[in-house]
This record gives sequence, C-alpha cells and structure tokens, in this order.
Amino acid sequence: MERIIECVPNFSEGRDLQKLEKILDVFRGRHNVKLLDYSSDEDHNRTVVTVVGETEALKVAMVEAIGKAVELIDLTKHEGQHPRMGAVDVVPFIPIKNVTVEEADALAKEVAKAASEAYGLPFFLYEKSASAPHRENLAAIRKGQFEGMAEKMKDEQWIPDFGPGTIHPTAGVTAIGARMPLVAYNVNLGTNNLEIASKIAKNVRFMNGGFRYVKALGIELEDRGIVQVSMNLTDYTKTSIYRVFETVKMEAERYGVNVVGSEIVGLVPLQALVDTADYYLRLENFNFNQVLETRL
Amino acid sequence: MERIIECVPNFSEGRDLQKLEKILDVFRGRHNVKLLDYSSDEDHNRTVVTVVGETEALKVAMVEAIGKAVELIDLTKHEGQHPRMGAVDVVPFIPIKNVTVEEADALAKEVAKAASEAYGLPFFLYEKSASAPHRENLAAIRKGQFEGMAEKMKDEQWIPDFGPGTIHPTAGVTAIGARMPLVAYNVNLGTNNLEIASKIAKNVRFMNGGFRYVKALGIELEDRGIVQVSMNLTDYTKTSIYRVFETVKMEAERYGVNVVGSEIVGLVPLQALVDTADYYLRLENFNFNQVLETRL
Repeated sequence: MERIIECVPNFSEGRDLQKLEKILDVFRGRHNVKLLDYSSDEDHNRTVVTVVGETEALKVAMVEAIGKAVELIDLTKHEGQHPRMGAVDVVPFIPIKNVTVEEADALAKEVAKAASEAYGLPFFLYEKSASAPHRENLAAIRKGQFEGMAEKMKDEQWIPDFGPGTIHPTAGVTAIGARMPLVAYNVNLGTNNLEIASKIAKNVRFMNGGFRYVKALGIELEDRGIVQVSMNLTDYTKTSIYRVFETVKMEAERYGVNVVGSEIVGLVPLQALVDTADYYLRLENFNFNQVLETRL
Repeated sequence: MERIIECVPNFSEGRDLQKLEKILDVFRGRHNVKLLDYSSDEDHNRTVVTVVGETEALKVAMVEAIGKAVELIDLTKHEGQHPRMGAVDVVPFIPIKNVTVEEADALAKEVAKAASEAYGLPFFLYEKSASAPHRENLAAIRKGQFEGMAEKMKDEQWIPDFGPGTIHPTAGVTAIGARMPLVAYNVNLGTNNLEIASKIAKNVRFMNGGFRYVKALGIELEDRGIVQVSMNLTDYTKTSIYRVFETVKMEAERYGVNVVGSEIVGLVPLQALVDTADYYLRLENFNFNQVLETRL
C-alpha cells in the first residue's frame, strides 16, 4: 500500500466475542485494508480496533463495520466503566504514509455521510474535523453519555454534523474525525520531588501556556524513587519530541535536577525519529525515503 | 518478508543489455525475492544489482544468477575501467531486518559452496566472512585482476576458500561474503580551510587511530566555500553516527570552527536513526518495533 490511513474505531462491546468477531470479520480478507490489532476490555465493555488501509478501501470497510455495530450493539443495555455515547463510540482517522491530515479529514466526512444515510446514525465531527472549537474535544462531545445525549442534542450548540438531529434509539451517536498520531512521551527526572515534575508539566503543556500540542502531568514512579513528566504529544509534526525534551531539560536545570532518561510508550511514527536525528545531527536535505526500510 | 538479507552482486557486463536481462530475469517473479535496483555503467562495463530476500529464496536465486553469468560473461574478452577479476566480481550479503551478520555470513558460504560445486568457479571469502585478515579487503583480493589471478592463486596466501585451486577459464574468480550496510555520512564545517577538514578526518578514521569502522577524507565544497569531513561508516551498529558527529564537532571546536550541518548520502538503515534518537533523548527501553511503519 502506497498511501496509508489508520483508523482506530472504538466499539462499545468488550464482552460478547461472537458479536465482536462479526464486526472484525468486516476488515478481514479485503484488498488494501489490514486489521492490525484489536483489544477488548471487559470492565470497560469496549473494544479498540486498529486497521490501516488505502482511502477508498478503508471507507467501504468502515461504513460496513459501522453498519454491523449498529445492528449488533444495543446501547440501551450497555454497561461499562468507560464513558460512551454510541455503539461505535468514536472513529478517528490518522494519516500515516503519503497522506495529509486534510485527506484523513475528507475521508472522515465521507464515512460519516455514507453511514448516516445508510443507518440513520448521527455523527459529530471532532478533533481536526470539528465544525466549531467547542466540538474539538471528545470528552466535551461525549459529556452526558448515551443516556443524556437525546436531551443534549436539543441545544443548538450540539446539532450533529451528519445524520438525523437526534440519537439513534439503540446505537446512539458517533464522534468521527481526523487526528494526528499520538505520541506518548515521558521524561524522567533525577529527583523524588513530585512538585518539580508538576511544575515542569505546567510549563510545557498547552493548557498553561506551553506547547500547543502537549498534554502533561507530573507523576511519581514510586518503585524507582523518581518523578516523571508524563506527556501526550498530539501533533508531533508541529510540536517535536526533541523540542519538548530539550525544554523539559532546560526547566529541570532551574531546580538543579537532571533528566535521567525519557521513554516513548507504544508506537511512534518514523518521521518523529527522522525529525529528532535531523535536529541533533543538523542534517541537510535528509529525506524520509532515504530510510532503507521504506524501500522494502 | 519477515527476515530480510540484501545482496548486491556486481556483474562484469555493463554494455550487452540482452545478456544482462537474462541475468536479471533470474530474480524476477520469485517468491520472497525482490529485485530492488540495478545500475549499469558502460565505461566500467559493469552492473551493480540490488536484490533483497529471505535466506533460502535468496540463496537459490543467487546460485542461479551466478550460473547464468558464468555462462554468458567471458572475462577473456572483457574491457572496462573498473578493476575486476570475475564474471560475477563480488557478492556481498548484508543483514537488513531480523537477521544477524552471522546469518548473512552463513548464507554467503552456502552460496559459494553450491555455486563452486555447480560451475567449477573458485570463491574468495571477504569482509566479515574472510578466512584471514589479509583477505578482508576486496581491493587486496582483486589486486592483479582477472589477468593476473591464475598466477596469484599459486601463492598459498591466495588459495580460494571454495572451488578449484585455480581460476575458471572464462569466469575468473568471485569474492563473496557478509558485510554491514555502508552509511555515507558527511559533516560540513564553517570554514574554507581544507587542512582543518583533513586533520579532523585523520583523527576520526580507523587508519590513523580513530574509530574502527570509519573511513574519512577532508574535501572542499567549492560552490559553498566550505570544507567537509567525508566519511563511510562501515558498521553503524558499532561506530554510531552520533558518536562520529559529536567527535567531529569536538575536534572542530579545537580550531574554533562550527559544524554547519551534516548529510547522509543515499540509504540509511532505520536502526541508525533509532540509535541517534536513543542517544540524544536518553531513551529507556526503546525498541525498533515501536516504529509504527515496521508494523505495516
């Protein structure tokens, strides 16, 4: 596949594996679509699926999978610890390879349009696809959950972007949109003073005047006797890992504290590593395609 | 393909495209073998082929391609500017993905054994596969070229590792072995003083007491009015890019000269970039498989 978008739909079913298999089967054996991963949580009663594909193939598969979930999952009977508002709770599209965020946004809207017409399901556009600033954040959209959503949608601030003006009786409502890949990135400090990690977290995070695409918290790593600035980088192309690292290091110096290490949790796009090498080695004209593995 | 070895055979034919096509055809349409690139030079009368594959499939294809070259290329009639000693002049095997250099070495020996038995062609093991230190370097092995090789092989220092004790009458002799991927890496200095680049090159290269896997030269970039430390890193897993960069920077400081940039020419293995990010970000427990693209 030359052009790859990732989709990470969250389905509100984490217990009935037979139902789940029917949804997952939609992604299997398709040309230009690949089911990479899925992970169910019984307590949350929720399954997170990771699928990659080319635009058109992914669109067809996602519309079909949404249809299968609308058919099989009944939110009026759903219990689980994780907040949820729909049978398909949220459908993010993430540009991975040779695809822009604008193309991921267009795909999200096409899927929302097709699925709303086919199944009478309403959709809120969120994140990079949001139609207004107050609708960017998933938690803000989902507040009130399935049970409160019919009432919430009477407010003109919460008219869906696609589909009917009220919830689907059993499948609720779905958030859909483009977002950048998240990078979970933590910097470990050579101190057990949580206050220092918390102060630095405040300095670097968007909420308090820091970098636009950083969420951060100070936390304790009790077993190691140190503290950590625990972060989510929500757009590594605009707020680079190395810039965040160097800023945390600089802030830590203020307290005479060393950075003892950092960690990337889970997956990171190759481009983020290329950007890091590019900065520190002062690379001239280095191109992603020079990485040997991209040729294989 | 889960486990990938690269092979870059050099064939002593760069003019007769019909013969060349017959050799290239051996690599086409095979399962677990992919012809990535080939490049012919008429002056050199030589073609460099890049093919990747899984061990067993690559072995079968390479033995067959060597046979085709032995059949089609007659060194007694070969003219060209590039030194050469065989129809298949040199066959390096390079570990790329989930493969060790020991496995590449084993593959080189298997191919040499099978091809020597099938075609009566002698082989010298070179680089990481060499059977003695004086046989590691290709230029040393090839000295005397096709025309002088029958005489050279009478010396007990130059008895082939596989096949008959003398050259094949038309196909000569072939060097074969495992080597690491080369990284062509240059560091640009903010001065037009070539002497400084040359001194730094001496300090970092193996020949003069520098890093074991660095070859280096000082050169002028006349159009930019600066000089460059131009390097080949012959094993980036043991002599890291960042270590070379930081050392050049440190040596340049001695002359009050800044590093204005660096460049990677051609391909670089992903691991080399991971190692760079790992060093500068002080990463803990980062694993190659966390790079998203390796999952696709």
